[in-house]
Amino acid sequence: MSLSDVRALCFDVFGTVVDWRESVAREAAAALGPRGITRDWHAFADAWRARYQPALEEVRSGRRPWTRLDDLHRENLLALLDEYAIRGLSEAEIDHLNRAWHRLDPWPDAVEGLSRLKRRHILATLSNGNVALMVNMAKHAGLPWDVILGAEVVRAYKPQPEAYLRSAALLDLAPGACMMVAAHRRDLVAAAACGFRTAFVARPTEYGPHQRKGRSAEQAFDVVADSFVDLAGKLGC
Amino acid sequence: MSLSDVRALCFDVFGTVVDWRESVAREAAAALGPRGITRDWHAFADAWRARYQPALEEVRSGRRPWTRLDDLHRENLLALLDEYAIRGLSEAEIDHLNRAWHRLDPWPDAVEGLSRLKRRHILATLSNGNVALMVNMAKHAGLPWDVILGAEVVRAYKPQPEAYLRSAALLDLAPGACMMVAAHRRDLVAAAACGFRTAFVARPTEYGPHQRKGRSAEQAFDVVADSFVDLAGKLGC
Repeated sequence: MSLSDVRALCFDVFGTVVDWRESVAREAAAALGPRGITRDWHAFADAWRARYQPALEEVRSGRRPWTRLDDLHRENLLALLDEYAIRGLSEAEIDHLNRAWHRLDPWPDAVEGLSRLKRRHILATLSNGNVALMVNMAKHAGLPWDVILGAEVVRAYKPQPEAYLRSAALLDLAPGACMMVAAHRRDLVAAAACGFRTAFVARPTEYGPHQRKGRSAEQAFDVVADSFVDLAGKLGC
Repeated sequence: MSLSDVRALCFDVFGTVVDWRESVAREAAAALGPRGITRDWHAFADAWRARYQPALEEVRSGRRPWTRLDDLHRENLLALLDEYAIRGLSEAEIDHLNRAWHRLDPWPDAVEGLSRLKRRHILATLSNGNVALMVNMAKHAGLPWDVILGAEVVRAYKPQPEAYLRSAALLDLAPGACMMVAAHRRDLVAAAACGFRTAFVARPTEYGPHQRKGRSAEQAFDVVADSFVDLAGKLGC
């Protein structure tokens, strides 16, 4: 199938659509600063995110049963608060801070690019985030998804092949009619192995201003773009 | 919880959002008329729809394993074509006609009403239609859903309680923060039994100009409206 046969664009979300690092740092500062707690909130965001893949791996490996990302995030937050010696938060305060991930801001080009891409494609989330997280984030950030797919719906965490294949099956599309869009090579390589087309969108500051990796696409993907607006242009939208 | 606590509006779709009878009659005429086949296409649409609940009941009862609605629709179409002595269609022609359900037109008030309701609520499908059917219909009809829930995602056909309860759980909402919107009393009664709030929207010509049932709400629902625009007004949107 050629690129013109692509019917659905399937998006990685954390880092690709939204700037989790700046948003989590801002949310942590807003939640904890007024209590007189001062820390390097960007480092706090990085440390929270660093616990993400190990937690997913517990589920992917089968060592623990299916657990949605909101619950993994909360466990990781409790450990992080302990590590940072931040004590005395109520359950409601912890819940609010955990839902920082529901209030992430989009990269500046995201909404404009998605709106253009939506005219000619189905826009699907294919994220490891759970449904409520994705829906609340979309309401917060104005992300015009057509359908929320991904981990919770298909009960598999990327890069497991089931995450991609079951998402395509729910759309009743061949994998070759689906294009994975991500800022992360590992995600795209796994999608391509399932027959998806791939678009790499560079997010050179996802991990902060001194990020080294992921600044450019080192592998051959179907499309390489530096923003969603650029992607829309390259897909003729 | 009061009505102002409702966060998500969960929509029945066939008959409530879209006019399946006129649309299927039009699609059947467009597909089969050029082949010189003439029938009463409204009666054909009614007969196709009449096979819907019995097919769902086979799955609900456990007599057959999970089967998505596109596949049930296709089995029913094959039986109907036989009953109508319509022969000689190719597999591709049958598939195209079966996907008439992906190309249903909205009631005239639907898009305007949904667009108003979307500003202050999560708009979810809670239909027995499968995901691809709902997504393709939304692209065809311009329906601004935030999330596609319902039968295929939760593996239960309404009015089974799991269809409502698992949809609310995916949104991480209490049932009382969800309002079922439907033109069918049975759907609303089942949702209310699960703790949902309910809105009845009258669709007095769903079954044609001589429809007798469902013209008005005979039971006490939280809101009774005669269109989605009316519903938006009654919910303060």
